Amino acid sequence: MTVSAQDVRAAAERIAGRVRRTPVIEVRPGLTFKLEHLQHTGSFKPRGAFNRLLTAKEHGELTGQGVVAASGGNAGLAAAYAARELGVPARIFVPETAPAPKVAKLRTLEAEVIQIGSEYAEAYQAAVQAQEQSGALLLHAYDQPEVVAGQGTIGLELLEQAGMFDTVLVAVGGGGLIAGIATAMGDNAQVIGVEPELAPTLHRALAAGEPVDGPVGGVAADSLGARRIGDLAFAAAREYGVRSLLVGEDAIVAARKELWIDHHLAVEHGAAVAYAALKSGVYRPVGGERVVVVVCGSNTDPATLT
Amino acid sequence: MTVSAQDVRAAAERIAGRVRRTPVIEVRPGLTFKLEHLQHTGSFKPRGAFNRLLTAKEHGELTGQGVVAASGGNAGLAAAYAARELGVPARIFVPETAPAPKVAKLRTLEAEVIQIGSEYAEAYQAAVQAQEQSGALLLHAYDQPEVVAGQGTIGLELLEQAGMFDTVLVAVGGGGLIAGIATAMGDNAQVIGVEPELAPTLHRALAAGEPVDGPVGGVAADSLGARRIGDLAFAAAREYGVRSLLVGEDAIVAARKELWIDHHLAVEHGAAVAYAALKSGVYRPVGGERVVVVVCGSNTDPATLT
Repeated sequence: MTVSAQDVRAAAERIAGRVRRTPVIEVRPGLTFKLEHLQHTGSFKPRGAFNRLLTAKEHGELTGQGVVAASGGNAGLAAAYAARELGVPARIFVPETAPAPKVAKLRTLEAEVIQIGSEYAEAYQAAVQAQEQSGALLLHAYDQPEVVAGQGTIGLELLEQAGMFDTVLVAVGGGGLIAGIATAMGDNAQVIGVEPELAPTLHRALAAGEPVDGPVGGVAADSLGARRIGDLAFAAAREYGVRSLLVGEDAIVAARKELWIDHHLAVEHGAAVAYAALKSGVYRPVGGERVVVVVCGSNTDPATLT
Repeated sequence: MTVSAQDVRAAAERIAGRVRRTPVIEVRPGLTFKLEHLQHTGSFKPRGAFNRLLTAKEHGELTGQGVVAASGGNAGLAAAYAARELGVPARIFVPETAPAPKVAKLRTLEAEVIQIGSEYAEAYQAAVQAQEQSGALLLHAYDQPEVVAGQGTIGLELLEQAGMFDTVLVAVGGGGLIAGIATAMGDNAQVIGVEPELAPTLHRALAAGEPVDGPVGGVAADSLGARRIGDLAFAAAREYGVRSLLVGEDAIVAARKELWIDHHLAVEHGAAVAYAALKSGVYRPVGGERVVVVVCGSNTDPATLT
């Protein structure tokens, strides 16, 4: 099962008006930021969520049972937001350890929040079970074709907004974002994944030749902390020759601070990972190379920015 | 002495490539934000600074003595930045009470910082004196025609970026920003000033029929705390029928928090003033009215956002 460029174009039509066409800003000649952290709910995730829900609606699969999802983070916020906008209930399963502010935010989006188990995998199992029992729609955080296609709409926007460019740097967690963008780009630009050394899902999969479980840790774990890359993302990475670069914790922290101090962007650690590759020299553009960095999330405690 | 729409157009040509064409974002149908807080140095001030310096350069008035300015805030940062970019020295006069982080930031922009006197007026007098003795160029924070024309380039961008709109809400301190935008708009849209109740420069001037000294206080005083409106701003307000609306402290604080929590924009209090008018109901658009809010600065301690 793969996602095609046509799927991404169809997603763009489907979710138009539901998500923001987020702006780009030319930071300096040759470097552009895509400000996707200004998307509804503060991350790119509503793109995939709306595409999944609206596709299901077209097929009569979005019922009064609504949607279930497992996530105490950006995917949960997006699921709750998209469900509310489409007038269906959302049940979001999160671990009992989920921080109270995140649970509160989900509730302000009118989601029913179920805290269960001590780690994500248990919350996910509970969501799957609830889906099977109720007939609600399961919205995965990254490994569903409609989700990947939805995230890919960022790539289509970039092709229209950012002029000519050679390279797109994208953070990788479960891989939905990079899979979508790589699919949207095709031959138009190279897409490079950047991951924390402490949560290297794509890196390990490329080394092993298949998705494998790996460690989850570090400052960006709240948004990039998938245990393994999604099958769809791995397939897309193979198909489009997506590489993975690793950045250290210090580089992520420094890049996030610089995004705030020099560029006035308040972002979460995971959203600084792509820029960290550039900033730290892990990725060095050749002369004249035009680079786009996707700034993908802002759900963070601003007190930690300085 | 007034500033014309032609002056603003000339400014736009002059400063092109030096300042960012900041993005707009449609928050919801009928409401657009101009994200001018993403300008270099985190406020709109470089527009006027570059226009003043580059105009002087064209006339041979920008010498090796460089530029002097009085400001521990956004105007000082912009003066230092523009001078550095143009390769001339900047001397920035600030009160002895200026916060250490602001002084440090000016120094990272390679400005010479002179701390003098206990309040702004003394620093300003020292800057004027230094200008007279050295032949350096004086850059005023708001009341110079080139400065007003430079800030007005935001208005020209809006006319190109924001589609059709009826109303622009702009925060007022010394008035350089609103004077420029009102001049750029002409008959294309109404421009409405919004001021803190505790720093009502335009409001008092309109009531008195001329610029008058007034109180300076409140949460937004660091960016909007001029003692009186500039003569140019007052003239422009009269010419274009610009009104002034007042917002209370609580409304400013609430608007700033909402800009962060709901819109992922980390801004200073002064930059939340215009939105506060809308949010608090001090300004109520009529049905179908399309409103633009200028979000004008982000030099703030992010720890105070939540």
